[in-house]
Amino acid sequence: MDNETMKQIESAQNPEVKALVKLRKRRDRDQSGLFLIEGYRELLRAVENDFPIQKLYICPELFLGSNEGELIRNIRSKGTEIIQCSPKAFEKVSYRDRPDGLIGIAPQIERKLTDLEALFKEKDSPLLVVAEAIEKPGNLGTILRSSDAVGVDGVLVCDRCTDIHNPNVVRASVGTLFTVPVLESDGDETLAYLRENGVKILAATPDGDTLYTETDLTGPLAIALGTEQLGLSDKWMEQADLRVRIPMQGCADSLNVAMASTALLFEAARQRREKAKEA
Amino acid sequence: MDNETMKQIESAQNPEVKALVKLRKRRDRDQSGLFLIEGYRELLRAVENDFPIQKLYICPELFLGSNEGELIRNIRSKGTEIIQCSPKAFEKVSYRDRPDGLIGIAPQIERKLTDLEALFKEKDSPLLVVAEAIEKPGNLGTILRSSDAVGVDGVLVCDRCTDIHNPNVVRASVGTLFTVPVLESDGDETLAYLRENGVKILAATPDGDTLYTETDLTGPLAIALGTEQLGLSDKWMEQADLRVRIPMQGCADSLNVAMASTALLFEAARQRREKAKEA
Repeated sequence: MDNETMKQIESAQNPEVKALVKLRKRRDRDQSGLFLIEGYRELLRAVENDFPIQKLYICPELFLGSNEGELIRNIRSKGTEIIQCSPKAFEKVSYRDRPDGLIGIAPQIERKLTDLEALFKEKDSPLLVVAEAIEKPGNLGTILRSSDAVGVDGVLVCDRCTDIHNPNVVRASVGTLFTVPVLESDGDETLAYLRENGVKILAATPDGDTLYTETDLTGPLAIALGTEQLGLSDKWMEQADLRVRIPMQGCADSLNVAMASTALLFEAARQRREKAKEA
Repeated sequence: MDNETMKQIESAQNPEVKALVKLRKRRDRDQSGLFLIEGYRELLRAVENDFPIQKLYICPELFLGSNEGELIRNIRSKGTEIIQCSPKAFEKVSYRDRPDGLIGIAPQIERKLTDLEALFKEKDSPLLVVAEAIEKPGNLGTILRSSDAVGVDGVLVCDRCTDIHNPNVVRASVGTLFTVPVLESDGDETLAYLRENGVKILAATPDGDTLYTETDLTGPLAIALGTEQLGLSDKWMEQADLRVRIPMQGCADSLNVAMASTALLFEAARQRREKAKEA
């Protein structure tokens, strides 16, 4: 790599380092409109999906693999500034136990409900996920991964509790934040928008009317998932068109919201494959 | 509660406290044959399933709810010694960020393969899980939760990497470690034992022959899950009777072993419900 033209940061006290550390806080993310993307896999997904990286901070001493050079060249070829950091400076910015020497900053995802317009024109039976006020980054990450795995058309994060730009969400999603159309929106607006576009709302609840596996999940559908502690709010529960039950053999609390999302989404995908075969 | 007859520990330097802290290490767990059960929910599951608690350490100042008294009385009624700790001493032992004032020590789970004998006599189509060399406690925990949710007849942890008595497995399993018949065993022995008892072995792999949803999962079946990095070892992959594919719409690495276990187990449960309806 051409180190001569590359900006270098030596000190962990460098003001740019301090500004990056601040982006771990939601307030500072929201004020700046930026967020951190740390890690080879996460940055690779971002680049593969043409997600713009504003600046890339690297620390070759910390690289874990052998493909970093190619990724860096790829990111640089898009005009992104590359900045080389000392291990000390890099470790100050990193939010991982074992940093892998790659952190980007990028503008936040600015998708809006109305950006789904095209989707509703193109697709007869879109499959959406509504994630209401999820607290744990790990759960939001798993919801995004499940959504990616089954090809969900949009994840609508409503009345956000943990924001999608939280470093731990980026990490737990292993970069699927950049592959799944995800957006943050207001719960009431989202509900109205889904209604308008003829999308049925599904809520899973222990006292659901039918088993989720015996409910038709093949039409335009939004699977609504609620908080870890309290489940979906009354608003969504009351407005749900389908109230389904996930049968539980064991203790009531063994299924968390992330696992429920996996079970529901993979069943929806199964039914859709079956239907496509019949047609 | 009757504090007068209760042993008290004030100092974080107390030798008993130090002995408890040691149980976080596998070596000390294996040497002593004991392990820690921390948390209200985890201890409740243990007690509900008649799992013996050897000693219970409590710190009323840290209680988060109002049901601790009942749980403690319940545990004490079985002859378990209750020891009251100062917050300092308790926090030294706790492996949580926010301890809830309850930690038990208990003898390790000593179930063996041959303990499944009765199961094979009673059940025509047992559903088992083989978890080979899983590294992350969180993944082992989710596998146990999924197994509990669908009523799996046994989880066989083979060639253990993370042991089932790791405090973070106890925690991530939210106590389903005590509701699901779980055991640790050698991979070769397990393979031979399953063969002997006519259990088909299922492996999920990207180049599987059929989709998991189009494969009959209703017979005597062991769903084999491999390490996060490398998947199942050749041993299991080659011996598998069913090699199935989980269809992926998104990026290849979006599905981890825990999510795969949820998808596979809930599909097996669905098929078994369907079959029971037909019969």
